[in-house]
Amino acid sequence: MKAIIVRPPNPGAQITDVDEKELDNYGKVKIRILYNGICGTDREIVNGKLTIANLSNRKNYLVLGHEAIGIVEEPCCGFSKGELVMPVNRRGCGKCLNCLIGRPDFCETGEFVEAGIHGIDGFMREYWYDNPKYLVRIPRELEDIGILAQPLADIEKSVEEILNIQKRVPVWTCDDGTLNCRKVLVVGTGPTGILFALLFRTYGLEVWMANRREPSETEQTVLEEAKINYFNSRNGYDRLKEKFDVIIDATGADAELLNAILPLLNRNGVLGIFGFPVSGTFSIDFKSVQDMVHTSKLIVGLVNGQKPHFQQAVVHLASWKTMYPKTSKLLITKTVSINDEKEVLKALGEKEPGEIKIRIYWD
Amino acid sequence: MKAIIVRPPNPGAQITDVDEKELDNYGKVKIRILYNGICGTDREIVNGKLTIANLSNRKNYLVLGHEAIGIVEEPCCGFSKGELVMPVNRRGCGKCLNCLIGRPDFCETGEFVEAGIHGIDGFMREYWYDNPKYLVRIPRELEDIGILAQPLADIEKSVEEILNIQKRVPVWTCDDGTLNCRKVLVVGTGPTGILFALLFRTYGLEVWMANRREPSETEQTVLEEAKINYFNSRNGYDRLKEKFDVIIDATGADAELLNAILPLLNRNGVLGIFGFPVSGTFSIDFKSVQDMVHTSKLIVGLVNGQKPHFQQAVVHLASWKTMYPKTSKLLITKTVSINDEKEVLKALGEKEPGEIKIRIYWD
Amino acid sequence: MKAIIVRPPNPGAQITDVDEKELDNYGKVKIRILYNGICGTDREIVNGKLTIANLSNRKNYLVLGHEAIGIVEEPCCGFSKGELVMPVNRRGCGKCLNCLIGRPDFCETGEFVEAGIHGIDGFMREYWYDNPKYLVRIPRELEDIGILAQPLADIEKSVEEILNIQKRVPVWTCDDGTLNCRKVLVVGTGPTGILFALLFRTYGLEVWMANRREPSETEQTVLEEAKINYFNSRNGYDRLKEKFDVIIDATGADAELLNAILPLLNRNGVLGIFGFPVSGTFSIDFKSVQDMVHTSKLIVGLVNGQKPHFQQAVVHLASWKTMYPKTSKLLITKTVSINDEKEVLKALGEKEPGEIKIRIYWD
Amino acid sequence: MKAIIVRPPNPGAQITDVDEKELDNYGKVKIRILYNGICGTDREIVNGKLTIANLSNRKNYLVLGHEAIGIVEEPCCGFSKGELVMPVNRRGCGKCLNCLIGRPDFCETGEFVEAGIHGIDGFMREYWYDNPKYLVRIPRELEDIGILAQPLADIEKSVEEILNIQKRVPVWTCDDGTLNCRKVLVVGTGPTGILFALLFRTYGLEVWMANRREPSETEQTVLEEAKINYFNSRNGYDRLKEKFDVIIDATGADAELLNAILPLLNRNGVLGIFGFPVSGTFSIDFKSVQDMVHTSKLIVGLVNGQKPHFQQAVVHLASWKTMYPKTSKLLITKTVSINDEKEVLKALGEKEPGEIKIRIYWD
Repeated sequence: MKAIIVRPPNPGAQITDVDEKELDNYGKVKIRILYNGICGTDREIVNGKLTIANLSNRKNYLVLGHEAIGIVEEPCCGFSKGELVMPVNRRGCGKCLNCLIGRPDFCETGEFVEAGIHGIDGFMREYWYDNPKYLVRIPRELEDIGILAQPLADIEKSVEEILNIQKRVPVWTCDDGTLNCRKVLVVGTGPTGILFALLFRTYGLEVWMANRREPSETEQTVLEEAKINYFNSRNGYDRLKEKFDVIIDATGADAELLNAILPLLNRNGVLGIFGFPVSGTFSIDFKSVQDMVHTSKLIVGLVNGQKPHFQQAVVHLASWKTMYPKTSKLLITKTVSINDEKEVLKALGEKEPGEIKIRIYWD
Repeated sequence: MKAIIVRPPNPGAQITDVDEKELDNYGKVKIRILYNGICGTDREIVNGKLTIANLSNRKNYLVLGHEAIGIVEEPCCGFSKGELVMPVNRRGCGKCLNCLIGRPDFCETGEFVEAGIHGIDGFMREYWYDNPKYLVRIPRELEDIGILAQPLADIEKSVEEILNIQKRVPVWTCDDGTLNCRKVLVVGTGPTGILFALLFRTYGLEVWMANRREPSETEQTVLEEAKINYFNSRNGYDRLKEKFDVIIDATGADAELLNAILPLLNRNGVLGIFGFPVSGTFSIDFKSVQDMVHTSKLIVGLVNGQKPHFQQAVVHLASWKTMYPKTSKLLITKTVSINDEKEVLKALGEKEPGEIKIRIYWD
Repeated sequence: MKAIIVRPPNPGAQITDVDEKELDNYGKVKIRILYNGICGTDREIVNGKLTIANLSNRKNYLVLGHEAIGIVEEPCCGFSKGELVMPVNRRGCGKCLNCLIGRPDFCETGEFVEAGIHGIDGFMREYWYDNPKYLVRIPRELEDIGILAQPLADIEKSVEEILNIQKRVPVWTCDDGTLNCRKVLVVGTGPTGILFALLFRTYGLEVWMANRREPSETEQTVLEEAKINYFNSRNGYDRLKEKFDVIIDATGADAELLNAILPLLNRNGVLGIFGFPVSGTFSIDFKSVQDMVHTSKLIVGLVNGQKPHFQQAVVHLASWKTMYPKTSKLLITKTVSINDEKEVLKALGEKEPGEIKIRIYWD
Repeated sequence: MKAIIVRPPNPGAQITDVDEKELDNYGKVKIRILYNGICGTDREIVNGKLTIANLSNRKNYLVLGHEAIGIVEEPCCGFSKGELVMPVNRRGCGKCLNCLIGRPDFCETGEFVEAGIHGIDGFMREYWYDNPKYLVRIPRELEDIGILAQPLADIEKSVEEILNIQKRVPVWTCDDGTLNCRKVLVVGTGPTGILFALLFRTYGLEVWMANRREPSETEQTVLEEAKINYFNSRNGYDRLKEKFDVIIDATGADAELLNAILPLLNRNGVLGIFGFPVSGTFSIDFKSVQDMVHTSKLIVGLVNGQKPHFQQAVVHLASWKTMYPKTSKLLITKTVSINDEKEVLKALGEKEPGEIKIRIYWD
């Protein structure tokens, strides 16, 4: 069958025919691919930069792709023919308690696998067989933006984790019982930043986004429709006179950014790190450490959503189509056909300016 | 101004002109009414049957109405002119800790008031002034079904409470981390039952509804679209061979119904009572009590949503427009004009066959 | 070896020599018995009244005993020779998620076993081999009252579950952050009632106990030392003018008792049923059901503590030796030698007047 | 009356007569002082080094002392004459929701006061009047070590907060339902380190302590009795081949220590900072930040216990007298009489070698 394959740690991607007997499968539900999403992780693999990427056990290549929507091809195991489904990409180690209860996002052994990234084949291929346990239903009416449920799941999990963490504070809700008085700063206006901002708005919080430039036209639409504030951080964060209950680093830039934003954190606040910084050092001088202690501040690394978060993501995407209709229409930047090999490989190679999400359509 | 007034405990309702200076107001945001929803509680007041209904302090009538969407008439206090808002109807006692933190659903004194029901005027009037603390934004795109956010808020709170209660069980999620393996039985197919069923589906649970007849055409549409199972309980519950992790009594019928459904509860299960039975006795013989102890069963009364639940209701209604488009269109049974006095009074007097929600439009 | 055996469902108990090769063992740690506690469940088995009691799989008798302290006989698996240990008696089904994570108190299949009660041999025998997973360390200084860690574990779990359940209430703590303002009524002054009362006092709550007579001298000592209030319920509960946030039925008497105490429950309150009523019916008329709904009341069955609760029980017993020294000395009513066969069999047959705990000493 | 006073920011302490009319009082319960504890914070004030220390509003000196046990002098407000009580030292801002519900440890305004430190007079004086809300009962049998309830309260709160935070992990308990498989490293063997270690042991965790030398004889006794492991970190932490689920910095030394211990943190682990480092910088290079993200690591500042934590501390101290009798006897290093002015001022000036807790006795 046709598939997009990679050979990590070597750079490069190929659209080619592969022997389906060589490929990993995970269950009995036959799924024909409909869409794949492309994200930064795919590009790091294609560019040979993702050190954790590796082959699946049985051959010298890996099928790429961890964002996918497919169509159930034969009725099986509770699924009807024609239903749209999305596979959960990280799958447990089979050993630790968190994996046993379906939560490999908190795997304790590190021996989980991730389809299309390390250990098992991904979903950029004509079809695969999967286990119902790993399949999330996508409503037909969400076909247009449903591919975002995978990246949004990571963010659902992150926000859920922060809300869970803040139960350490006896009352973190406001005097009307909501979270409306809580302020969030999301640093970075890429797809991750936008999804974080929309999700925190959906939970009722006041949201600020920041980047080192004025917002693009697309970003401006999102900011206006979802009532998100914006700060241009080109000249540093000193002029930002707000304090935030939650700050999210969604940049994956230099770790020194963290030095600049930590002082903006409110008492009892949480600094969540979602991106992977690629240079620099996060330095907290002893006075700032004292301040963290005196005012109960907290720093946490945020990673990976699981099936419950995919399902939440579906609900939230569905709600955004109603609540943020203009924004919803901007979330898919482009759809390229799998038959347009050149465009597909280009999209896999590098991010387009202003891109939120590019998807591949298997027509 | 024009208003719909009642004089509990006396039956009857009047559409009449009232002196606006006599009416209760709650803040600075001027809100012009757009829609009122009518629910069973309104009808109980109009029919002189709701014993808790009483006047507000200052006059010999009460403005009816606790379900409302209005339009902000002047910019104020963070609200723009033209925004749609819904008032939260129950307001705290000002004394207990739960009311102080905006959660009079768990008021400890019982001295809270409820607009249009007891203590303060409701919202079936041309305009009122309110406090931002009690106002929930309704997106323009939700104008069509937004009035349901008030009744749905009670159900959001109920489901949230059940999920909180079940944290007593070390792992209540399934082996995929979701709640998909958990089964709910919702008894009663009125508006409350339907909203419960849709909400549990949104949380991923398997849902059964039951009533003592075959489902109506409207109900059939909901069942099919949202993949809800149905049981005709005319001949009792013995033939229902399922066990349920959650059972909701949404009937408000005879308390003896509870005798019939308690045996359907699974180990560690929750029986939630939402309706108010009007006759009969819930009898649990000693063997059933023993069984409750041996298998950690739980019975809980469920009541009243607050502002966080209204906001959740808005998100869920917005998602249902995408996920359950046919169902969404059926949720508002009819809109009657305030100018059609006869129709309004008829709607306030009794429920229509098959009605889900009737709303009054102030044109 | 010498053992106390039963043949459920037949009544009767025997102290006899058994072939150790026939007995169930659970691991590698060899444990020589030191003390067994006797409780109501043992007596129900001996009297042929416990319907759930059954043999272990391999022979026509069952070694009795689920309360035990033993001495590790050989160093093994992290235990030193001479350490005192208590076995956890209920052991999981090996199938459901709660059992997989060590919490068969919430087993979902009901296929757990209980040593000395159903499925596997108990601990009234010279020695057995066990798995460290099921062993709880007992400090030497707690040898005197440590046997109570088993029955107290059930109560630790019950109180923990109630505290978990009450997280449904946004603020259930008092205005000083404690639970000191919360009132508990414990009905029944047997060992269970006393342990419940002491534990709630340890958590800071105000506690009332009730029984249908004046307190005994022993009870009076406990009440005074631990500052527990008392109500003589001989003439009914009408004269008890308090309302309670938690009511515990620890009687195992007639289910009609529950009718009498439900009206004493405060808003947002919990009625916990710990005992197993042996007759009667718990009847809640529709007005009381309405009240449960209006005021968020909750009824829950409470059962079985697991290893974390045994460990908590050890800490609390240790604290009581300091905080309630007189009470601590009264908790063990009598110690009978295994060599005094007549006394042992008598103690296994029926409860002594005023007994809190009788233990068997294997000297 | 006699009192120990300070004049921050100036160094120095005086035992002198003060006009009782000048002193702050907080309620109606008259309390005669019995013991004061001396801690590092007192010494920082006396040495003029605590920048947050300031006078109470009304005069040019401050009564020192935030660790105290007193005797109720007249029956009042639910307290009997002769009861031992300990005052809670931090008192709320009266504005934020956390202070309103008795939890100024999470005060959101920072406008709380702390008796004997900033804003209001402390308890090193013959008597004061207090509000029952701020008083914790100390059992007579705990008179010997009860003064430790104040410092232990901070640690109770810290451990509670960590356990709350770890509810972010779906299953953080072990396969026997306990926390016995979780490993803690406590860095620093001062009083704080010892109390942390004992408390984590009480919760069942495996504990390691570390310091840059061999343990003292006193420390050795604690380590052996409570089964705590020890690591001499003089030559760095590289040779420590364990990974830890929780690491506590209880040193208040140089922030660079944090660089050395962060790599010892397990997946999903928590680094809790309790001490206040006085120099250096905590530097986390980008690879370590990536690791924090990939493996969900978390860093949190820990501070201040409130009344529920004082009450827990009382229970735990009471339990330690039974469980760790040798250790309990070592916890109070010395008792000095208030009449021995020279000794008192010496004790206020500097820590003794090997000191755990020195208390002043008002005889």
